[in-house]
Amino acid sequence: MSDKAYRVFEEQQKERGIDLEKVKAKLKSFKVETPSWGYGDSGTRFKVFKQAGVPRNPFEKIEDAAQVHRLTGICPSVAVHIPWDKVDDYEKLKQHAAQLGVSIGAVNPNLFQDDDYMFGSVCNSDPNIRRKATDHLLECVEIAKVTGSDLISLWFADGTNYPGQADIRKRKHWMLEALTELYQAMTPDMRMLIEYKFFEPAFYHTDLADWGMAFNMATKLGEQAQVLVDTGHHAPGTNVEHIVAYLLDEKKLGGFHFNSRKYADDDLIVGAMNPYELFLIFYQMIDAAADPDREVRQTAENIAYMIDQSHCIEPKIPAMIRSVLNVQTQYAKALLIDLEKVRKAQRDQDVLAAEHAVREAFELDVTPLLQVVREEMGVPVDPMKAYFASGYADQILSRGKGGASW
Amino acid sequence: MSDKAYRVFEEQQKERGIDLEKVKAKLKSFKVETPSWGYGDSGTRFKVFKQAGVPRNPFEKIEDAAQVHRLTGICPSVAVHIPWDKVDDYEKLKQHAAQLGVSIGAVNPNLFQDDDYMFGSVCNSDPNIRRKATDHLLECVEIAKVTGSDLISLWFADGTNYPGQADIRKRKHWMLEALTELYQAMTPDMRMLIEYKFFEPAFYHTDLADWGMAFNMATKLGEQAQVLVDTGHHAPGTNVEHIVAYLLDEKKLGGFHFNSRKYADDDLIVGAMNPYELFLIFYQMIDAAADPDREVRQTAENIAYMIDQSHCIEPKIPAMIRSVLNVQTQYAKALLIDLEKVRKAQRDQDVLAAEHAVREAFELDVTPLLQVVREEMGVPVDPMKAYFASGYADQILSRGKGGASW
Amino acid sequence: MSDKAYRVFEEQQKERGIDLEKVKAKLKSFKVETPSWGYGDSGTRFKVFKQAGVPRNPFEKIEDAAQVHRLTGICPSVAVHIPWDKVDDYEKLKQHAAQLGVSIGAVNPNLFQDDDYMFGSVCNSDPNIRRKATDHLLECVEIAKVTGSDLISLWFADGTNYPGQADIRKRKHWMLEALTELYQAMTPDMRMLIEYKFFEPAFYHTDLADWGMAFNMATKLGEQAQVLVDTGHHAPGTNVEHIVAYLLDEKKLGGFHFNSRKYADDDLIVGAMNPYELFLIFYQMIDAAADPDREVRQTAENIAYMIDQSHCIEPKIPAMIRSVLNVQTQYAKALLIDLEKVRKAQRDQDVLAAEHAVREAFELDVTPLLQVVREEMGVPVDPMKAYFASGYADQILSRGKGGASW
Amino acid sequence: MSDKAYRVFEEQQKERGIDLEKVKAKLKSFKVETPSWGYGDSGTRFKVFKQAGVPRNPFEKIEDAAQVHRLTGICPSVAVHIPWDKVDDYEKLKQHAAQLGVSIGAVNPNLFQDDDYMFGSVCNSDPNIRRKATDHLLECVEIAKVTGSDLISLWFADGTNYPGQADIRKRKHWMLEALTELYQAMTPDMRMLIEYKFFEPAFYHTDLADWGMAFNMATKLGEQAQVLVDTGHHAPGTNVEHIVAYLLDEKKLGGFHFNSRKYADDDLIVGAMNPYELFLIFYQMIDAAADPDREVRQTAENIAYMIDQSHCIEPKIPAMIRSVLNVQTQYAKALLIDLEKVRKAQRDQDVLAAEHAVREAFELDVTPLLQVVREEMGVPVDPMKAYFASGYADQILSRGKGGASW
Repeated sequence: MSDKAYRVFEEQQKERGIDLEKVKAKLKSFKVETPSWGYGDSGTRFKVFKQAGVPRNPFEKIEDAAQVHRLTGICPSVAVHIPWDKVDDYEKLKQHAAQLGVSIGAVNPNLFQDDDYMFGSVCNSDPNIRRKATDHLLECVEIAKVTGSDLISLWFADGTNYPGQADIRKRKHWMLEALTELYQAMTPDMRMLIEYKFFEPAFYHTDLADWGMAFNMATKLGEQAQVLVDTGHHAPGTNVEHIVAYLLDEKKLGGFHFNSRKYADDDLIVGAMNPYELFLIFYQMIDAAADPDREVRQTAENIAYMIDQSHCIEPKIPAMIRSVLNVQTQYAKALLIDLEKVRKAQRDQDVLAAEHAVREAFELDVTPLLQVVREEMGVPVDPMKAYFASGYADQILSRGKGGASW
Repeated sequence: MSDKAYRVFEEQQKERGIDLEKVKAKLKSFKVETPSWGYGDSGTRFKVFKQAGVPRNPFEKIEDAAQVHRLTGICPSVAVHIPWDKVDDYEKLKQHAAQLGVSIGAVNPNLFQDDDYMFGSVCNSDPNIRRKATDHLLECVEIAKVTGSDLISLWFADGTNYPGQADIRKRKHWMLEALTELYQAMTPDMRMLIEYKFFEPAFYHTDLADWGMAFNMATKLGEQAQVLVDTGHHAPGTNVEHIVAYLLDEKKLGGFHFNSRKYADDDLIVGAMNPYELFLIFYQMIDAAADPDREVRQTAENIAYMIDQSHCIEPKIPAMIRSVLNVQTQYAKALLIDLEKVRKAQRDQDVLAAEHAVREAFELDVTPLLQVVREEMGVPVDPMKAYFASGYADQILSRGKGGASW
Repeated sequence: MSDKAYRVFEEQQKERGIDLEKVKAKLKSFKVETPSWGYGDSGTRFKVFKQAGVPRNPFEKIEDAAQVHRLTGICPSVAVHIPWDKVDDYEKLKQHAAQLGVSIGAVNPNLFQDDDYMFGSVCNSDPNIRRKATDHLLECVEIAKVTGSDLISLWFADGTNYPGQADIRKRKHWMLEALTELYQAMTPDMRMLIEYKFFEPAFYHTDLADWGMAFNMATKLGEQAQVLVDTGHHAPGTNVEHIVAYLLDEKKLGGFHFNSRKYADDDLIVGAMNPYELFLIFYQMIDAAADPDREVRQTAENIAYMIDQSHCIEPKIPAMIRSVLNVQTQYAKALLIDLEKVRKAQRDQDVLAAEHAVREAFELDVTPLLQVVREEMGVPVDPMKAYFASGYADQILSRGKGGASW
Repeated sequence: MSDKAYRVFEEQQKERGIDLEKVKAKLKSFKVETPSWGYGDSGTRFKVFKQAGVPRNPFEKIEDAAQVHRLTGICPSVAVHIPWDKVDDYEKLKQHAAQLGVSIGAVNPNLFQDDDYMFGSVCNSDPNIRRKATDHLLECVEIAKVTGSDLISLWFADGTNYPGQADIRKRKHWMLEALTELYQAMTPDMRMLIEYKFFEPAFYHTDLADWGMAFNMATKLGEQAQVLVDTGHHAPGTNVEHIVAYLLDEKKLGGFHFNSRKYADDDLIVGAMNPYELFLIFYQMIDAAADPDREVRQTAENIAYMIDQSHCIEPKIPAMIRSVLNVQTQYAKALLIDLEKVRKAQRDQDVLAAEHAVREAFELDVTPLLQVVREEMGVPVDPMKAYFASGYADQILSRGKGGASW
């Protein structure tokens, strides 16, 4: 049956003029990084519901991440958060990952959970605290050297809750100082990804509040600094795909933290609220990957796709698989856009035709395509079903409740 | 100096035709309830910063609340949250409060921190959990009987995170069932205040998401059920004062949870973000208190004004004092609106004159007025200064860190 | 090819346990009303771009609407706006429609374009203006009697731009007075649909600002009054499908004005911004149509589905066809939800399974299904292509520029 | 009485350590530009209510603007909009202004009302339309040379309504091309102010959607290009004062378009919705004016303060006076902030003290101060009252209805 479905799909795409082999090749080389913290317990300020089977340490987190990779075939790396994933021997962690078929990805410093950071970390008016925070950034570079990571992924909770609480301009300079020190400590193969966020945990001003602030920092720092777009970190209504296109054009888009939101930084399963937005983001990526400007193309092809979400009420591993599959689904759909048709309609200023040429790819059912791709990749055709059949969910119950959380 | 300032103020108000004695009388009888949980540690999902001196139990929370009342003279009652304020002997808690010059105010059931409530409390599809949740509501009525409270103040975290997760219509019926049982258990002097919230901790749908849903419940239940407006629980841009006026007209406004927000339910110090909005809410209250309809007037005069905020980075007691003073300030300003002038301009359809007649009261400096009122009430003229002079802040440091939190 | 695609689709749905014949029957009886004003020029406050071929009078508008019905087979009625569609002889307009195979649908009073309504229509503090406005409502009932319409569809622009500008509570009473008079003038077969709107053109308060206010009015009036949900009339982030479910449960949902928005009341082509939201609305409709409560089922089956959008830059007729097709597409997808599977997962409190059971229907490509349905209905398989092939677009160019607009 | 009030105020400020003479000097040199289009009729897409007395041509608009300056003493220049203010002889317009005691201020190109601009002006994919649009920009430079204006103030309506409608990256390049050409045409004394807007009239993407995009353009262009902040052009919740501080620090803030909003770009009277936000903007301005960096200080002192609002239901001239007075009021309050006290509290990380040190200035009643300042400037103590007493409002009625509008 799925064979028949794929043959119909194949014929359909041929008629549309889509080179399906190219699409399949793209899908096979597509990678999404999962975050170690996405396997632990998390919640809201009101409650963290503890689930049984949650990993108790960084090693177990990587084991869970390796399961996701085993089943999906597209998650070969795991982002770590320091100190959540602090271990005595990072070489050992790296080996552990390698043995499980994955690697350590982006290193994420954590500058919001130490008591000292109540009024900020790198933007704190206290120079000692700034020093401590910057030292932690440098520590992360050292860890990255050991783990073989080439990405330092930065999110700062720094901000204020009240007008007047702090000197906004001074804090901006302190931010740049810390980032400069970090930048200089990086090896030439490393990239720094600077994330921004509209609000939370700061409720008046956030030092890196929008893409413009992150972009400005990255521009001042140099080529190895780029912007990271977390899809949940914008004001209501913000056109995220526009920001993506803009940063691509500036060669300053470095990566994504995918998750889904309806209200604020809800950190839900990717694609759960507005899958079309995710598709439109990929449309911009794919369009830029065919840009006449070589540097734009390279930027588009060098994006770190990462998941960053919190599962408050969901079982962690299947929630992660769902997110990964949703990302893959929308990427697949975007690959099926007939870009030439879009561009022709754009040249003709035919609004309806242009809109339709994009949307028609979204309306395709890519299940048969993804099944074939998975088959050819040697991973389960239905990774979710395979997970539940694998027994892994039961096996980890022996870990009990009370695993890692944030 | 402040004498001179008051004499100028007095003259000014006389010229404006304001009966200052009436205003002062209103200010003296104005009451704001503070919440026991506002004295404990709180934070965001990212971090709860523990502060030294935070109360370790309900008795100490009431001691802190009593300080706020001693200094402001307008906070004679303390809301409690069960089980956060669970004690073996509520009679004893009541006595403790009485000895400190305060009383137990609204009883707030807590239906979001038990592991059973991961998928809802009174709206849970599991009848056993609904039963447990409803029993907790009934328990709160029993506590209220002992503490002499006449308000049951209800906020439900119930909701879902994903489309399809639950049957929205069934949950609505379960909500009504639980509230009906609670309603029937209340004594005739009790009131049930039903709070609503736009989102958080639920990120797809919240069972009581807006005033309309709370209002509908209250209408179905009867006269003893009313709506509670938390100023931070609305969608961006919502006109809160319109909702206030609307509910007043329906005789269904029961109380407020005051706090301030810029983004979501930020729970900041009252009046910190948009003091004008608070003033406009009081304008509606005062306007309704002069309504031709006696029942509307009674509704307006029977409002439970309560603070509900979280102090993530502020010292708790002075933050509470600041909120109380900000509420008092905006109430005082609203009392100085020349309602006759407003109404005349409204009759004339003179937009600019009407707007100005309201705003001009906001632009007054009510400091001299409040100082005189405080003097006459026998409380410190500057409660904040008095607090820091009192030594209380130092005294509570002996409690150490690690007090109550949520 | 499309035959093959349909056979695969059929097999697939059989495997999923879907009764495709039932789905097809539903799709054939599904109706969407198009608005006469959607065929005229419209724009923003900055500019109305005049397009060639726009209808010059109500008769031509109905001709265009009839084209949309001819091509889609699901738009047999046309909503009118008075006085935009004022004619000397409504009987003649009705005949004109009948000859073209359509009928006059909802009658929409217009209470915002007369100079008298600068400060409101039925909520104006001037009793003469209120009288004039109410008389217009009554006039619409008379028109409806002639045109055979059984729906009076009400949107009021009434509101204020500044705090203090008007007495919010009095305006609420005036609104009820006018609606009561209208209600009493309706014949027993008529329904009054009350629309609400978050803001615009009023920028401080809107008299009917949200579903709660419209619902409250409808409840006070009686069974023949219901709420109309315009999908663009909510605060950012509002869960529209929750409101839909809520109103269905109260038997007070009467109809929809479909359009799409990203920011405010953008009035874009339906489904252009977040097609998943539209699908989720239909999920609620379909779920309620299977409710154990007969009245809920009847409410769900008696909904007036209407388009209400402005085409600022699009050619009008194809934009309308696109909207109609998008509505049909999402309705078709929602009909393919395996409700039993959803409910089982809900009972099991299996969040991921429940979410997936809903979303999997959205991910289906319903093109083969819709093509077969259209074939069986005797309308073009691809209505958009058929429109461009029909020559109608060229034919209407003889109307020139400068047709009807608002 | 006002004398007494001022003496009390003076004493009070002395106690606070404020140098009142300095404050008065600042207030006397403060200037706000009013826009010619603010005197004409405007409205929403639903209706433009025509008012009697509205100016019929640019000369009459300047007459009205001159009245506002005569009464307030702080509005010596008038922004013009081309082609709305197109005249045969700009020298004559300049003379006319000079005779009335005002001058021509910023020149604002209009690139949204020509039929050619349906799909954009400088970002249109049609090179002929881009050329036409750019030529209009150049024309404005020529006009500025004649009128003696040194500001070209740019707002572009360019954007799209649908995903896929246009190539976002290409449009970005076209924008830069046009701006570069304009930049090169400017004389060295001219400045280009680049405005951004969240949405409207474009409903999917706006080419200059936020400060980051305007800033990036200004940075690429050079020193004579800066950003213009329109207070109504942001996403809900955006911290405007943060953006202001940020741009000041980058020496890239050039000016403001002041107006007030609750929902979208409501264009209401300045300060009508959240006066505290306006105050906080001025706090940032004043703080930057004391920055150690000379260039930051110069930037802060070289800001073009302009009003940009639409009066849909208000009489135009008094609405403008109200806006100007509200701006002046909040500026006066901000000048009374004890910056040293704020900074000390910031150094101490005393959140409550810092917040209070800012807010306490907002709570002052600056009426006595402004009255004295006006007296010393030789303008009416109460400009609004003076306007109504002047007879000007009656006099302009002879213009009849149907004046300039947009």
